[in-house]
Amino acid sequence: MPRTPNPQIQPIEWRDGVLRILDQTLLPAETRYIETCDYRDVAGAIRRLAVRGAPLIGVAAAYALALAARRGYDMQVAATELAATRPTAVNLRWALDRVLTAADGDAARAEVEALRIHEEQIASDMRSGELGAALIEAGATVLTHCNAGALATGGIGTALGVLKTAHWQGKRIRVLVDETRPLLQGARLTAWELVREGIPHELIVDSAAAGLIARGSVQAVVVGADRIAANGDVANKVGTYGLALAAHAHGVPFYVVAPASTVDERTPRGSDIVIEERDADEVTSFAALRTAPDGTAARNPAFDVTPAHLITAIVTERGVLRAPYGAAFAAMARREAAIL
Amino acid sequence: MPRTPNPQIQPIEWRDGVLRILDQTLLPAETRYIETCDYRDVAGAIRRLAVRGAPLIGVAAAYALALAARRGYDMQVAATELAATRPTAVNLRWALDRVLTAADGDAARAEVEALRIHEEQIASDMRSGELGAALIEAGATVLTHCNAGALATGGIGTALGVLKTAHWQGKRIRVLVDETRPLLQGARLTAWELVREGIPHELIVDSAAAGLIARGSVQAVVVGADRIAANGDVANKVGTYGLALAAHAHGVPFYVVAPASTVDERTPRGSDIVIEERDADEVTSFAALRTAPDGTAARNPAFDVTPAHLITAIVTERGVLRAPYGAAFAAMARREAAIL
Repeated sequence: MPRTPNPQIQPIEWRDGVLRILDQTLLPAETRYIETCDYRDVAGAIRRLAVRGAPLIGVAAAYALALAARRGYDMQVAATELAATRPTAVNLRWALDRVLTAADGDAARAEVEALRIHEEQIASDMRSGELGAALIEAGATVLTHCNAGALATGGIGTALGVLKTAHWQGKRIRVLVDETRPLLQGARLTAWELVREGIPHELIVDSAAAGLIARGSVQAVVVGADRIAANGDVANKVGTYGLALAAHAHGVPFYVVAPASTVDERTPRGSDIVIEERDADEVTSFAALRTAPDGTAARNPAFDVTPAHLITAIVTERGVLRAPYGAAFAAMARREAAIL
Repeated sequence: MPRTPNPQIQPIEWRDGVLRILDQTLLPAETRYIETCDYRDVAGAIRRLAVRGAPLIGVAAAYALALAARRGYDMQVAATELAATRPTAVNLRWALDRVLTAADGDAARAEVEALRIHEEQIASDMRSGELGAALIEAGATVLTHCNAGALATGGIGTALGVLKTAHWQGKRIRVLVDETRPLLQGARLTAWELVREGIPHELIVDSAAAGLIARGSVQAVVVGADRIAANGDVANKVGTYGLALAAHAHGVPFYVVAPASTVDERTPRGSDIVIEERDADEVTSFAALRTAPDGTAARNPAFDVTPAHLITAIVTERGVLRAPYGAAFAAMARREAAIL
């Protein structure tokens, strides 16, 4: 069973045909696991965000397909059902295709491939964590947004993997955590991981970041990415762009950490990325309590786009890339092709 | 009795020796008024933020002192008690001093002066509202932060007074309202006023503003001010600075609306303003529900500072000021002296 370095932060576990999934909707109040042999429970968990984070969704879907194969379900039918849970998640389709192809209808081979996908994610996080940690100075206070941690990947995380690695290297960093409205992934998930890692941290409201950067309280900003365009523009959780503007205005380095697979060569630039608008209730309510008056509508863009010129470096498991990003991505692809 | 144009948005009313105060802590769920003849109830209401907003606190304290005089309390003792409720509020001391001086111990004169302070605030809001509305183009979507409305002044509001005036002028504006964590003055108070005025509006999480500005969804940003330094740097609700950075990056005008008395000539520049840190619980909890895990601390700066070079204009009841602000404030003071 692939394991992240901290058994206290284990969002997904495969044990001899039983999948154990941490229900992230209950964090931080409750640490409850869903244990199942039925792939449809996994589909449900993905749908209601009990499992979230693009890489972790891919891992969960791969295991789910292995469960379906064990039970003798038609793997194509199961894959179609799983793919429909989060239609925009690129990793989800990619992981399902890998398991389908490798298994060729065989349950044992499906299980091997799902375990391999999970192991590769763990290794990828470890590598980008090391590469990114080299960019963080000892004693730095680092600001992060949303959750790009173990709870998003099943490894040590991408952005948070960098911060954990710097901490394990004895760099005595401190972390400022944006609470990340509307769903509070920073307050609920990132802070939960940092508590379990014993990394000193403080929570802030999202809008406090710019003022703290201006006052010299932040030495680096490290975030994840949902999609990276071919020119280096980055789509990530709403609020990322404002952080990049503030970091740039005060000469604070702004790092994006993501698997190389996040780079989408078919998207030329950030303005080509369609921004998902989510349910207004997420904004007009706060943890099921209505905060806005009746008659008030809301806009709820889930992501924003940070232009490449505000990004100091993009850290992937294959290297640290710097502008111009188009050329850097091409060079990374050439190196990969030379290895294969 | 001084009245704001909309009787549905009346945060404070004086009726023949009875003061009626809207309890803003219960909005938007409940519209409940505190009715009292006892100045100590007003002190309590200010202390627990049932009444908030620097100008409105001044008005409430002035009425409270008139109540104290009616009941035969020592006005100096009452003023000292009222001044201690919010030690940093400049308007509070200023209003109490005005009533003390004008009354000279006489209850009838205290009441006249309190009513005059309230009337002056209403007139000031109307004037800055007109001056600011001239800067707003027809059909514009205008972004605002926190609550600088009737609920903060007892008039039509400062920043929100500009938007209401533009709406009454038939300019068909739309308003984007930052929810304004941690205390949600945007979601709870500004949206409540906009519903009652029938002004089309949408609520957003604070961190969505930069991305929406980048996508061309915002034609102007209009905010209030807690204190303005002599060089034009503005201290306002945390989050204001990030909005100014985003507006500047995309050529969107950024307007500050505040009474001329908000300019503090004794504060040379924004960096001289001490930023109040409020209770961490405001960040780690919401409405008594803990959102962060045990072991997570928080930083909670209440304000940030927007440098003068990001501000397109400062709108006061005495005129629209533009950079260089030091010279503009001096010219405003000279005009005032010439009139007096």
